[in-house]
Amino acid sequence: MNIRLYNAKILTMEEDREIFEGEIHIQGDRIIYVGEYGSTTEDCKENMPAGEEHREEKETVEKDNVTWDKEIDCEGNLLMPGFKNAHTHSGMTAFRSYADDLPLKQWLEEKIFPMEEKLTSEDIYHFVKLAILEYLSGGVTSIFDMYIKPAATAQACMDMGMRCVLTSGLNNFTSSVKQMAEEYDEWNHTSPLISYQLGFHAEYTCSKQLLTQVASLAQKLKAPVYAHMNETAAEVAECKKRYGMTPIMFLDSLGMFRYGGGGYHCVHMTEDDKNVLAKRRMYVITNPGSNTKLASGIAPIASYLDKNIPVAIGTDGAASNNCLDMFREMFLVTGLAKLREKDAACVDAMEVLKMATVNGARAMRLKDADVLAEGKFADIIMIDLKQPNMRPLHNIGKNIVYSGSKQNVKMTMIGGRILYMEGKYYVGEEPAGIYKETDKIVKRLMH
Amino acid sequence: MNIRLYNAKILTMEEDREIFEGEIHIQGDRIIYVGEYGSTTEDCKENMPAGEEHREEKETVEKDNVTWDKEIDCEGNLLMPGFKNAHTHSGMTAFRSYADDLPLKQWLEEKIFPMEEKLTSEDIYHFVKLAILEYLSGGVTSIFDMYIKPAATAQACMDMGMRCVLTSGLNNFTSSVKQMAEEYDEWNHTSPLISYQLGFHAEYTCSKQLLTQVASLAQKLKAPVYAHMNETAAEVAECKKRYGMTPIMFLDSLGMFRYGGGGYHCVHMTEDDKNVLAKRRMYVITNPGSNTKLASGIAPIASYLDKNIPVAIGTDGAASNNCLDMFREMFLVTGLAKLREKDAACVDAMEVLKMATVNGARAMRLKDADVLAEGKFADIIMIDLKQPNMRPLHNIGKNIVYSGSKQNVKMTMIGGRILYMEGKYYVGEEPAGIYKETDKIVKRLMH
Repeated sequence: MNIRLYNAKILTMEEDREIFEGEIHIQGDRIIYVGEYGSTTEDCKENMPAGEEHREEKETVEKDNVTWDKEIDCEGNLLMPGFKNAHTHSGMTAFRSYADDLPLKQWLEEKIFPMEEKLTSEDIYHFVKLAILEYLSGGVTSIFDMYIKPAATAQACMDMGMRCVLTSGLNNFTSSVKQMAEEYDEWNHTSPLISYQLGFHAEYTCSKQLLTQVASLAQKLKAPVYAHMNETAAEVAECKKRYGMTPIMFLDSLGMFRYGGGGYHCVHMTEDDKNVLAKRRMYVITNPGSNTKLASGIAPIASYLDKNIPVAIGTDGAASNNCLDMFREMFLVTGLAKLREKDAACVDAMEVLKMATVNGARAMRLKDADVLAEGKFADIIMIDLKQPNMRPLHNIGKNIVYSGSKQNVKMTMIGGRILYMEGKYYVGEEPAGIYKETDKIVKRLMH
Repeated sequence: MNIRLYNAKILTMEEDREIFEGEIHIQGDRIIYVGEYGSTTEDCKENMPAGEEHREEKETVEKDNVTWDKEIDCEGNLLMPGFKNAHTHSGMTAFRSYADDLPLKQWLEEKIFPMEEKLTSEDIYHFVKLAILEYLSGGVTSIFDMYIKPAATAQACMDMGMRCVLTSGLNNFTSSVKQMAEEYDEWNHTSPLISYQLGFHAEYTCSKQLLTQVASLAQKLKAPVYAHMNETAAEVAECKKRYGMTPIMFLDSLGMFRYGGGGYHCVHMTEDDKNVLAKRRMYVITNPGSNTKLASGIAPIASYLDKNIPVAIGTDGAASNNCLDMFREMFLVTGLAKLREKDAACVDAMEVLKMATVNGARAMRLKDADVLAEGKFADIIMIDLKQPNMRPLHNIGKNIVYSGSKQNVKMTMIGGRILYMEGKYYVGEEPAGIYKETDKIVKRLMH
């Protein structure tokens, strides 16, 4: 499909590029043009540098050779890169609001683990579909998903058009290094929507022997590794008792991060831990909604910025959060940092917008999904600037982070396909059908 | 208008009443029936107690005498009381994202105060209208508004159909006790949508003499008093230096709270402060979004519940928050309490839902807007249970608090009038007209 999105405000998220008025052209799953061509306001033309008129003419010729399958008037609304949900367990929508307001250990051991044992691949397939509806309605265009039975997650994403980076949740009880190596091969060569990164659940659920095998595989494949790290104070204390080191120091001592990677959560951190992340060029993938609801603590985001450690943002799963809403997460990243540091000037909103888009893509190794530019994936969202919470337009970026909500997502496009627009889904089936399947599974699980 | 809302799930928020399936009848601005009559699912009939069949017949007769102006099939979605935004400065939408990520003192003194001086009554009228659009899109049916020029706020609310309790922001520089007494008379007798409560800005902006006069007026009128209290650590420290007491202890020593009232924020509190609130049967009106973004601290909500101090919730103004979204506030109330107490079981979501509805109405002295029952105001919202973030339906109340968003608000009705439905406003004018006015004012203010 050739699609032209015109009469838009555009935030490409390229370094130091301001919002401008213009249009975006899409061919297949890629962006072929981002610029001011055809922009309708006088303001824009006045600000056009000398010589631009020429460029405009040339492009008119190019444009005339393209037959548009669809031309969409954005009516002055904002186009920007979709949000990257850099840590989630999509299949856990099954347990949204199933058990809350309980101490963490009781919640996990008495409520979640016994239920997860009952989940089949087909169950997960349907609950991932439910999660995808939620992602699309909230402007999420890529997910970094760790869950049991990744093939089920991949299938749901391919069937609905979602971009997904799978990663292993390997531990002493599920999966194996052999299986992970096979998955790595399979899912990096199956679909342009799917890729795969090495990973394991966490230090506290894996034996030293298993972790050593993961480190060897990472070195063999020259690949980054991702896992839950330093999420709770108890986890850090137990690891120190076991190995005399924090989880991050211990994992690094095994050679785990020779090719980088990332840590989910990273709440309870020493200076040494942070220095490892910086040295290994690793990503922190922060999950403030989950850390808040489970009372895990507030991650030291300001100190990561000080040390140039890149931060990406994830929602975690719907059993702990309980929603998959990057707007909530963005507000929490900056808000909780401000509370933690007792400084209202801490972690600027624009930095957070970068975390939720550019850094997310880079953390997930999606090099073509970071910004809006020629040759990049057409993973684009339209933000409705005509909702009252976006007015006035003093600062659109800060409006998104501090005042934005899923209500403002007018369109979600992934790989050049419009999957959500004006509250309707274009994913090959109606939400009602997905709810019917998931309700049926819930009924079975609860008996 | 006589309106029948049928085929609904209903959460009345009455004590210990579970969600049931049924319908609500409305005549004029009041609810005349809430019950299971006509409920369509088999489940419901099976669970009906003996004798209910008779009641149903009787109601059929009553129903047949009513001519419905409108009958709405709720399609199984949830009806519940609208949210009460118990502390806001609606006119401050003018400054949304105008100045953020600054230290509190610099933000207020360099950015906000100079701009506020330029605001006319007419400016405020238009920015309150902008705020009302946002309230309606987020299911807010009553606001407790403190701002300069309350007549402008009242006019905007009356023109659009919003329920509003005004309160004074009296301080050394604006308004006077005489003016407040006049406003109290006027706005408690002008419109069924508007009422007025005594108040002042805060201890640190009022002289002791002024505060003594307020206390006298409160005693004369036997009326409660509301103000910002113990919001920041600096405010408490300065008051202690001035009077040897915390703000709440000092104000109470003046006889301010003989007839109760409430404190906005209440973040930095001693045991004595809390005991005053409990003894005077006062409300805490918590504003977690604002306290977070301005790095003021986390209010000790769990301890208020322990002492049976009722808590209501407000958004504060859009200059500090920056949005007027009770869903965000609800998540923060419970989430921040969990972080503060390091206890994931702390401040149950259902308690928070009560704060955002029943307690809000009571704090604002809106005795007929607390729950859905016969004789109460028809201030009702419909929550869309067919959005993915509300599925599955393990626990609808917890879904609303932990996963809900403004996207889930399908309808907002105030005083029997549908003001918002399916993303459209029915307030006598289109949003575009309001944006045009507010954009014009912003342009003037910024020059």
